[in-house]
Amino acid sequence: MANQILYLEDLKVGDVFISETYELNANKIKAFAREFDPQDFHSDENLAEHTFFKGLAASGWHTAAVTMRLLTESLPFAHGVIGAGGEIKWPRPTRPNDVLYVKSTIKEIKPSKSKPNQALLFVESKTFNQHNEVCQQLVAKLLSFQKN
Amino acid sequence: MANQILYLEDLKVGDVFISETYELNANKIKAFAREFDPQDFHSDENLAEHTFFKGLAASGWHTAAVTMRLLTESLPFAHGVIGAGGEIKWPRPTRPNDVLYVKSTIKEIKPSKSKPNQALLFVESKTFNQHNEVCQQLVAKLLSFQKN
Repeated sequence: MANQILYLEDLKVGDVFISETYELNANKIKAFAREFDPQDFHSDENLAEHTFFKGLAASGWHTAAVTMRLLTESLPFAHGVIGAGGEIKWPRPTRPNDVLYVKSTIKEIKPSKSKPNQALLFVESKTFNQHNEVCQQLVAKLLSFQKN
Repeated sequence: MANQILYLEDLKVGDVFISETYELNANKIKAFAREFDPQDFHSDENLAEHTFFKGLAASGWHTAAVTMRLLTESLPFAHGVIGAGGEIKWPRPTRPNDVLYVKSTIKEIKPSKSKPNQALLFVESKTFNQHNEVCQQLVAKLLSFQKN
């Protein structure tokens, strides 16, 4: 099914999608931080030692952005991966040289009341590091469209 | 208070923080999309016309990242803006040349059970465009630390 485009009628609760991997490094963490989250613990290895994170850590929003990258490649939903919002948690920091992958599970399918050819998918996406620890847990509300 | 560092004892429910502004443009939207959310509606003006968004729109995670940038400049919390997670909604897309700002309100202060010198702040951050329409609504759980 890897490259097959999936419409609403192709999906069911419990379906699982596993992404490829993405390797972070200190330069990527610092580049993202300079642009979007310029705080010592995300932007400078030495200063980061003396912070809450006790060492360089990726911005949570960087972990979220990398997760989205992995989702665009692993959720072959018709018309794209379109989110209305969601709930996000960062149980532990993402670190330089972490290798991330995402496991997504459809938890609920809620038909639209106003648009009979659409539904909202509640998709749980857990972002794991190379030690199989969860760095991010996202439950996103994604749009799904019928083919017919 | 603009540059004063705020500890837990300085904060109360109802406190409001207004950010500076940040101007998006098509090049920034496409650069973010190429790296993190390579879908037609975020990466190509022409292809975007024929999608759900009917024109180029920023990735929601780009709006979130810009919001974080504005929060780092507008929430002068001691030890930084450190989030454990939150709830996020994108009621409308962010578009090229939108000028964004963020209004943050402390909604709840929840003392930590295990760490008496810490609390979790529930901070609602609404990201507005230049028409005062909400592009993103985030309720983040942020760490706050006592000074004494």
